[in-house]
Formats: sequence, structure tokens, C-alpha cells
Amino acid sequence: MEQAVFTVNNVWMMVATALVFIMHLGFAALESGLTRSKNTTNVLFKNTLIPGIGLLTYALVGFNLMYPGFASGTSMDFFGFSGFGLTLPEGGETNAYNAGYTYWTDFLFQGMFAATCATIVSGAVAERIKLHSFMIFSVLFVAITYPIIGSWKWGYGWLNTLGFLDFAGSTLVHSVGGWGALAGILLLGARIGKYEGKKVNPIAGHSMPLAVLGTFMLWLGWFGFNGGSVLSADPGAVSRVLVTTSLAAAAGGLAAAFTILFTTKKYDLGMVLNGILAGLVGITAGADVMGVLDAVLIGLISGVIVVFSVLAFDKLKIDDPVGALSVHLVCGIFGTLAVGIFGSKAGLNQLMIQALGVAACGAAAFGTAFLFFFVLKKTMGIRVTPEEEIEGLDHHEHGMSAYVLHNAEVSSKVEVTAHTNGAVTKEKPVAVH
Amino acid sequence: MEQAVFTVNNVWMMVATALVFIMHLGFAALESGLTRSKNTTNVLFKNTLIPGIGLLTYALVGFNLMYPGFASGTSMDFFGFSGFGLTLPEGGETNAYNAGYTYWTDFLFQGMFAATCATIVSGAVAERIKLHSFMIFSVLFVAITYPIIGSWKWGYGWLNTLGFLDFAGSTLVHSVGGWGALAGILLLGARIGKYEGKKVNPIAGHSMPLAVLGTFMLWLGWFGFNGGSVLSADPGAVSRVLVTTSLAAAAGGLAAAFTILFTTKKYDLGMVLNGILAGLVGITAGADVMGVLDAVLIGLISGVIVVFSVLAFDKLKIDDPVGALSVHLVCGIFGTLAVGIFGSKAGLNQLMIQALGVAACGAAAFGTAFLFFFVLKKTMGIRVTPEEEIEGLDHHEHGMSAYVLHNAEVSSKVEVTAHTNGAVTKEKPVAVH
Amino acid sequence: MEQAVFTVNNVWMMVATALVFIMHLGFAALESGLTRSKNTTNVLFKNTLIPGIGLLTYALVGFNLMYPGFASGTSMDFFGFSGFGLTLPEGGETNAYNAGYTYWTDFLFQGMFAATCATIVSGAVAERIKLHSFMIFSVLFVAITYPIIGSWKWGYGWLNTLGFLDFAGSTLVHSVGGWGALAGILLLGARIGKYEGKKVNPIAGHSMPLAVLGTFMLWLGWFGFNGGSVLSADPGAVSRVLVTTSLAAAAGGLAAAFTILFTTKKYDLGMVLNGILAGLVGITAGADVMGVLDAVLIGLISGVIVVFSVLAFDKLKIDDPVGALSVHLVCGIFGTLAVGIFGSKAGLNQLMIQALGVAACGAAAFGTAFLFFFVLKKTMGIRVTPEEEIEGLDHHEHGMSAYVLHNAEVSSKVEVTAHTNGAVTKEKPVAVH
Repeated sequence: MEQAVFTVNNVWMMVATALVFIMHLGFAALESGLTRSKNTTNVLFKNTLIPGIGLLTYALVGFNLMYPGFASGTSMDFFGFSGFGLTLPEGGETNAYNAGYTYWTDFLFQGMFAATCATIVSGAVAERIKLHSFMIFSVLFVAITYPIIGSWKWGYGWLNTLGFLDFAGSTLVHSVGGWGALAGILLLGARIGKYEGKKVNPIAGHSMPLAVLGTFMLWLGWFGFNGGSVLSADPGAVSRVLVTTSLAAAAGGLAAAFTILFTTKKYDLGMVLNGILAGLVGITAGADVMGVLDAVLIGLISGVIVVFSVLAFDKLKIDDPVGALSVHLVCGIFGTLAVGIFGSKAGLNQLMIQALGVAACGAAAFGTAFLFFFVLKKTMGIRVTPEEEIEGLDHHEHGMSAYVLHNAEVSSKVEVTAHTNGAVTKEKPVAVH
Repeated sequence: MEQAVFTVNNVWMMVATALVFIMHLGFAALESGLTRSKNTTNVLFKNTLIPGIGLLTYALVGFNLMYPGFASGTSMDFFGFSGFGLTLPEGGETNAYNAGYTYWTDFLFQGMFAATCATIVSGAVAERIKLHSFMIFSVLFVAITYPIIGSWKWGYGWLNTLGFLDFAGSTLVHSVGGWGALAGILLLGARIGKYEGKKVNPIAGHSMPLAVLGTFMLWLGWFGFNGGSVLSADPGAVSRVLVTTSLAAAAGGLAAAFTILFTTKKYDLGMVLNGILAGLVGITAGADVMGVLDAVLIGLISGVIVVFSVLAFDKLKIDDPVGALSVHLVCGIFGTLAVGIFGSKAGLNQLMIQALGVAACGAAAFGTAFLFFFVLKKTMGIRVTPEEEIEGLDHHEHGMSAYVLHNAEVSSKVEVTAHTNGAVTKEKPVAVH
Repeated sequence: MEQAVFTVNNVWMMVATALVFIMHLGFAALESGLTRSKNTTNVLFKNTLIPGIGLLTYALVGFNLMYPGFASGTSMDFFGFSGFGLTLPEGGETNAYNAGYTYWTDFLFQGMFAATCATIVSGAVAERIKLHSFMIFSVLFVAITYPIIGSWKWGYGWLNTLGFLDFAGSTLVHSVGGWGALAGILLLGARIGKYEGKKVNPIAGHSMPLAVLGTFMLWLGWFGFNGGSVLSADPGAVSRVLVTTSLAAAAGGLAAAFTILFTTKKYDLGMVLNGILAGLVGITAGADVMGVLDAVLIGLISGVIVVFSVLAFDKLKIDDPVGALSVHLVCGIFGTLAVGIFGSKAGLNQLMIQALGVAACGAAAFGTAFLFFFVLKKTMGIRVTPEEEIEGLDHHEHGMSAYVLHNAEVSSKVEVTAHTNGAVTKEKPVAVH
């Protein structure tokens, strides 16, 4: 390996790391945009702290849990730990460590990944979870659940040895995060007012520009999420991954747009955003082994799935404010199975192995997440009081509003009915604080 | 070509691709920021779907229309098509395809470009166009107009053979998009209330933060738009392009700020944003052949032009909500001609060739766009009903508001009509602090 | 130096340049988010023009003041100037100029840095400074103060010869900008209503989503600010810098979150943002010489410092709307001193040199900035009228509102007191749909 190729590989991996970092802004914008303005500070607070929590936790234990040094190709290990903290290994700054990146790049790229897992949970439990309980959950989930499951495949553990394929983490990141979200939702319950008997009351997000910004940032970030998962700058491999990734996103958005149009007769922007993300999650497991048509098909199917999934979860009264379950869990599972159905690795045997991986990772992720949330619920509680929920978490937990729009030109259809003791002729200015 | 240089070339081109992608977020933010909040979801919807439409259309036909394999240097061809869909050619993943990038990178970079053309139209026709008509137009424009015109120069067609210069698309992308926008505006007419007799009623955008975010994203994206148009990572060529591009943007913003200040005595933020974009569009045709002073001059002139152009279009009652015509059409033409006036290729002969290219591309772009919009107008219609326009497209087409600000601290000057005891009294404005 | 390594070095430096550029969007979003909506257009206007002013000024004089050609290692020079404007030197486009980048990349990277210095001042003096006075100050500060002080270290002047260490500018950029901010605040005075006797009235920012967006953009930009300051793509050096930078940001955010939680019992999002930025500023001087634990400690200390600093400045009635003094000045000084306390260069002698550098740069920055603002105050004035300040700078200087939210669904806690026929009746809340 010559120095120049090593240097360019490492540059690409650093760029990919920066792109994955920007996904945290994407999640912050998407999740706050799709929830109510009375909880915006709270949502932003969680998403702003998560990268920090993720990186520090991953530095302390996660990285060494995920890459414990299992024997590549023969290990059937479930668990390993190579010690606390980061220590620069011999050759860690040169291509003696890896031909694609230095030790530092390796840690930072993987650390940025780790934090995304907790972020997926964040949106699903938004608008009713206690902040400190969620923070403790995040630490545990990033420190324990994510890296141990990750070690099974990316750390050369038993699933890798069995031939399980998950290129950039449809299962290891997205469905694992999705299972954590499901556990949280089941133990928290729905937001007040969302379900009344059989009726579903949609709770609109407060800012579509924020949601769109978030989605574009996530798509951009996926250039690094999938493109960096090649683990080098190999021109053919990386550029092919970027093409399959982008085509799946494009197809997912369009499929969701038409699916919901035929269902509700409305051009539903939120569903288009979900469709784009669904396509991205769906292609993630096999972005390296799909052809152009495969990628488009996976995107289309993901875009259809996500719409019906959102509707189905509401029928089941599983209240997911941002559609995280449909995008990350359902399409994460589909994308993982799709590696056995489409592309160069398709085959019944591969499909069975994919299903095994989905089930094993799902059981571990849901089980541990349920345990964490359950213990938290029984000890410090995980749900805010009804008063707090109705008034908004921003006021109670943060003592502030996310928006203070004074002297902006604001208007809406205003109807004032003044009840006064008799006939009213002339009103004085009405003060609206 | 050694492997390391090929790899770094391809890395730069992938980075440039990601940067051009981010321009779609830039357009989404700019266009929604400069239009009214009652149409925000609609604007965002268009801009969110366009990258997807662009990529899929370009994969299906556009790429092979734009690069049909004309003979470089001798072809006088107007049209060619090398087949539907993407197929990895021999050597497509190695430097046997191209020394600067793989086949996949080539497609994705060009595909991201293609979609920007439709986005330029989007802002100009905003707040009154029917969504499905616009979507059909976008498909046709990206599938047919953009790639065929592009083939004349970048596909080694007749304009290239004649010596027409358009480095990164002042004409091929920006003025082509601008001509499409003009065709749309002429067939749509102005927004209700914009012009009353000789009076121009300015319709303010709803969010300057969004517009500023969009402009910064576009400037950032231009690092890839122009920097990637070198088609390799050649250090001298690319870095020079980034310098000329940034200096033109800087000069454009300042020139527009002072021009409008002297005209209206106000520091007009919208005009500064237009000035920055004008400088960027202006330098695009010649970013590779301009010196430092040339770039500053082109930026300054573009920044002055854009202000007077915006005022002139309003005098002509050509209603362009976001100034797309002034930025992309007018400055796109100026920038193309500037290659014959400034920099190392200046000369009367070159100027004539530039003018020929502007005219030919303009005729083709305006003609086809007018045809598409005309047929759509006569069949399914292109304009929403007055009721829909007044109430806002978000409600009618999308069934939602882009903003739902509950429990935010909001105040403004409100006019209230109080219905009291059967008697309706018109009240004076209510001060809302 | 082979061509491939030179090319990849230059690619990384161009990417870093784009990332530093994006910091200007970060500052624009952060500063407008943390100030009031009646001044948003004004804040955005300043931040939108600053990159342009910075680049053009730096091209004209700054670059040649900062790198005047002092003799590396032996110079004790305070001042030098190598002429107006940019002229491509011999070998400027090849590795004969520098092994890490071309002349163009060098200029653009340094120019993007220069503008950040003025931006730091912008937030601190917001909501009361006259726009044109600030613009003139910016030109002077970027043209004179920043590059001359910068030449002392990065231009191989006397501080460099003495052994002063400031890797990416905790002092040369951040504390220099902070001193400029302090000078401005002292001459401007506090905003109306901020301090009443001993009481501090918090003035809330208007949009937390904007502030969070800005902070993420700044963190992202720091990948280039610190990562690019290696001045090549050296894999070990750059990736290590990215790790120390990110860990310090993570630790800073968490430390500030807990510090303010223990102080006020609230989860204060603004403080978390300040903490992240504090960690980033703190690590900047020594990002290349710190270990993992050093970086975390510097981040933690910075995150604690910033909280108490914000509280202290308010006690001193030094009104800094966005916390720029605490983040950039105080943590900039701490970070510079930290190079003598933590990491591989720690030592009493080094600490003394660091303190000397802090004092010398501080005296020069504060002195010149005070002079500029003082002369402006005595001539054209630096503060808007009280009427203008109360009504908002957007209306007076720009003739517009930053937000015009019509037909959005808006509501807030409404209290109506209707004065009817002499009798005041307490009304029930008015529903604003």
C-alpha cells in the first residue's frame, strides 16, 4: 500500500465521518419539525446532547466492545471487550493499522455511527419522555446494546462467520435503533389525545421547513454513512454505493408520494420525507451488491411499505410521532432481507441467514432496550406528568419557549367573540401576550 | 494515470457531487423563504421531489441523451441518444473510463446538475402553479430539454466544435433553467394582487432565516458545481476555480447591497442574497479562465445587473417571486458573454460565438418549455383557482399548514373584527405585544 | 513530493476551506437564533455580508499582511507587508509553492478564517449597533488587526520565534475576535432593559432551532478549521486532530449542561450550545498536541468555565447577547494557556510563553478595536436611537420583518382585557386559529 492511496483513503473516511456527523443535525431538525412547538426545545436538547453522549460513551467502552478482536472468519463469539478507553495501538496512525484509515479515523467514524442509534429512539419517544431517563437510556444503549450487537457482524463475531450481510447497517444501526424505539413506545404509551377509542387524531408537526431541512441533511449524511462503509476510497465501490443509495432515496420519495396520494388524495409532504428515508434505510444493507434496477426497486418498495406501516402502527395505537418505527425498524428489516432477494448475493440460503440476523439482533436490541426502559420506569419513571405533557415539556423541563416571535408579522384567521354585559361599541386594543 | 491520482480525482468528484446535491436544499430553503407561509408546504414539496425526479429521469434517458457519444472536436450534431437506462460500460469502474472519475461518479455528478435546472423553474412559478402540472413539466424538462441542449456543448456536439465556452453552465444550466422559468411565468400570469394598474405591490417572503440558509447552502454547493466541473482534482485548476467563484460571490453581494441602498435607501437583505447568487451564476461560465480581478469585476457587474433586472421585470409585470429570472437567466447570459470580454479567452470572435450559444440554447430552452407548459395549460391546466391561490396552496393541495406554532410566544399587530351580541363592529387595530 | 500526495493534500485543504466557509452560516444561524425576532434581518444582514467583506479585504491587503515573508525561525518582526492584491507566485499552482496546497487554496482557506474573526464581534454587539458603523469596523478589523496579529505567529513573526503555540487560533482567531467584541460592548453599552439596578432581565433568543442549527454547523465547520490547520492531509495528524476536537466539543456540551442544571435546576439548551462551542474553542490551540484524556479534560473545563463566565459578565453588566465573550474570549484564553498545562508541550516555560502571547495579542486586538469603535462613535456614531432599538432594527434599517407568518396556525397564551363602555371586563381567552 503506497502512502498516497492510504492518504486518500483516509481523507475520504474523514469526509464520510463529517457527513455522518451532519446526520445528527438532520435528526434534530426532522424530529423537532415533526413534533409540536411546545416540545421543540426538549427535542432539540436530546438531539444536541446525543452526539456528545455517543462519542464519549463509545470512547470509554463502545469501541472496544464492538471491535474486541474476534478472529475474522472463524469466530462464533457473542461477546468480547478489549478494555476501557482509547489507546493508540502500534501503527495506529499509519497504514500498518489499516489500509483505509488510521485508528483515530476508525474510532471517530464508528463513534458517529453509534450515536445515530440512540437518535432513532429519540424521535419515537418524543413529547412525553422524561429527559433524564432518556439520557440514561441513551448511555446504556450506546454503551452496551449497540456495540455488542455490532460486534456480531462488524467485529467479526458469529453472524459474520455465518455469512450474514449488512453493508452499512439496515439491521445493525437502523432496526436496532427501531427496536429500542418500539420498547420505549410500548412502555411509555401514546401521547395524550392521539387515540380516542378507534379514532386517530393526527398531531401535526410544527415546522415543515425544519423537517425538510432534516431530511436533506440525512440524505447528504448517507453519502458518508453508506459511502464510508466501503472503508476506503476505492473508486468503483464507493461511487457505485453512492449511486444505489441516491437512486433508492429518489425512488422511495416518489413511491411514498404516489402511495399516499392514492390513499388520501393529498400530496403529503411528511410522507415524501418518510419515503426518502425509507429508501435510504432499505438500501443500506445491500448498497454494495445491488445493481441500478435493484436499487430503484428496493427504494420503491420501501416507499410503499413506509406508508402502510405508518397507517398500521396507528391502527395498533403505537404512537410514534416521527414515523421512526416505519422508517428504521420496518424498512431496516426489509432492507436486510432484500439482500437475499435482490442483487448479486440473492438466494434462499442467504435470505435465511438474513432472517436469522434480523431475528437475533432484534431480540437482543428489543430485549435490552425493554429492560433498560422497564427498570427506569420502575425507579425514576420515564413519563412526564399529564400537566407537563399538555403544557409542553419546554416550559417544565427547560423553563423556556423555543420560539419567541415578537414584532414579526403574524396573522391567522382570527375570530374574536367578545362576551360583554351589553352592547359593545368601541373596543380598546386587545393585549395578546 | 496511476491509481492514487485516479482515486483522489474520484474522491474530489464525489465530494463535488455531494455539494451539488446540497444545492437542492439551498433552493428549497431560498424559495420557501422568499414566498408566503401559506404556500410553504407546496414550495417545499416541489423542491423535495425534484432531486428524485431528476435522478430517475436522468438515469432513464437524460444521461444518454446528454452524452450520446458525439465525436469530440469535429461533430456538428444536434441530437443523439445512446439508449435507455444505465449500464456499466467496460472499464466503468476504473480509469479506463475516465482519468477523473468512474462511470458511477460521472452519472451521479451530472444527474445532480440536471435536477438543478428544473429547480430554477420551480421558484419562478411558485405560489400559483398546479403541482401535478409542474411535476410533469419537470420530468419533460429534465428528460428532454436540458440533456439535448447540454449535449451540444458538454456532449461534444456542434456548439463545442464551434468553440463555445461554458465552463460549468451559466448557459447550459442557469439560463436554460431561466428560459424555462420565463415560459412558465408568461403562460401563468402574475400572482393575484401583485400588480394593480401601474402599481407594484411587493409580496414579502415569509422567513429571512430560511432565505439566508438557502443562499449559504447554494454558495457552498457552488464549490462543487464549479469546482467539480474541472472533472478532476487537478490542484491548480480546481483551487483557482474556487477562488474566482468565491470572489465573484463576495463582489456580487456587496455590489447588490450598495446598488439597492442607493436606490431605495434601505439595506435590503433579499437583494444581497440575489447579488451573491448573481455573482455565482455570472462567474460560472468562465470560472476556469478568469483572473482575480476579472472575477471581482464579473461579480460586481452581476450584482448591479441583478438589482435593475428585478426592478425591470416588475415594470414589465413579469411576476417572479424569487428573482430567478434576474439571477439565472439574465446573469447566466451575462456570465456567458463575459467569457468573450474578460479573462484569457476574451476576444470579439469568442464573444460572437458566446452570443450564438446563448441564442441557440435560449431558443431551444424557451421553445420547448413554452410548448410543454402550453400543452399542459390547454389540457389539465397549469394554474390553481383564485380561491386556492388566496387561501394558500398548502391547504388545498396538501391539507396542512407548514407552521403550527402553539404555545410559542408570538405577538404582532393584529386586526380584529369582533362579533358582539349580533352586532359586528369594525375595530381599530389591536396591538399585540 | 509526488503528485498524488500533493493532489490529495490539496483536496483535503479545499474540503477544509468549504467547511470553514460553512461556519459563517453557523454564526448567522446561531446569532440570529439567540437574538430577538425584531432584529433578525439585521443580524442576518451582517453575517451574510461578512464573508464577502472578509474575502475581498483579505485579497486586497490581509493575506499579504499576514504572510509578509518573515524569516522562519529567527524573525522578531512585528509588521510586514508584501503588497496589494493577489498575484500568482512562481510555482503557485504546484507543489513548488507548498507541499500541502496551491497558492489559491492557501489564500481561500486563510481568507475564510479571517472573516470568522469579524463574525465573532458581530454577535456580541447585536441588537443595538448601527449597521454601517459595524461594516466599517469589520473592514478595518479584517484588514489590519487580524492579519498583523496573525503574522506574529502564523506569518513566522516574533511570537512564533519565541515558541508561542496556537495550532488553529484559540488566540489568533477566537480571543482576538473576543477582544474586539469586548471593545465594542464597552463603547456601546447594554441593550435597553437588560439591566435594572442589580437585576438582570434575561432577553430570550427568538428561535432555538436556528441556534441549534448554527451550533451543529459550527461543529461541522471545526472539522475544517482544526483539521485544515494541519495544512496537509497527513493521515495521523489530521485524524488525531478531528478526534481531540470532537471529544472536546462533546465534553464541553455535557459539562455545561450539568453545570447549569446544578445552578438553576433547568436543562438550559442555550448553555449546552455554548458549552459545545466552548469546548471547540478551548481545544483549538492545542488540538494537535493533546491526547484523548487531555482533550476531554479541556472540553470539560471549558464547559464549566463558559457557564460561570456568562453569569459573571452579566454581573458586570457587560451585555453580550450571544455569549461570544465567554465562548471566544474566555475559552480562547483558557485554550491557549492549556497548551502549557496539558498535552505533549506542557511545561512552566511554555505556559509563560502562552501567557505572553495571550497578553500581547489581547493588547493589540483590544487596543485597535477600541480605537476603531471610538473613532466611529465620535464621528458617525455606533448606536442606534432608543426608538429604533425598541421598535427593532429590522424596521428602521431594513424596512421589513424577518418573519411574515400569514395563514400559519399560531396560538399562544392569550389574555384579553376588553375595555367596553367604560367598564373593564375580564374576557375569556381569545382563540387565534
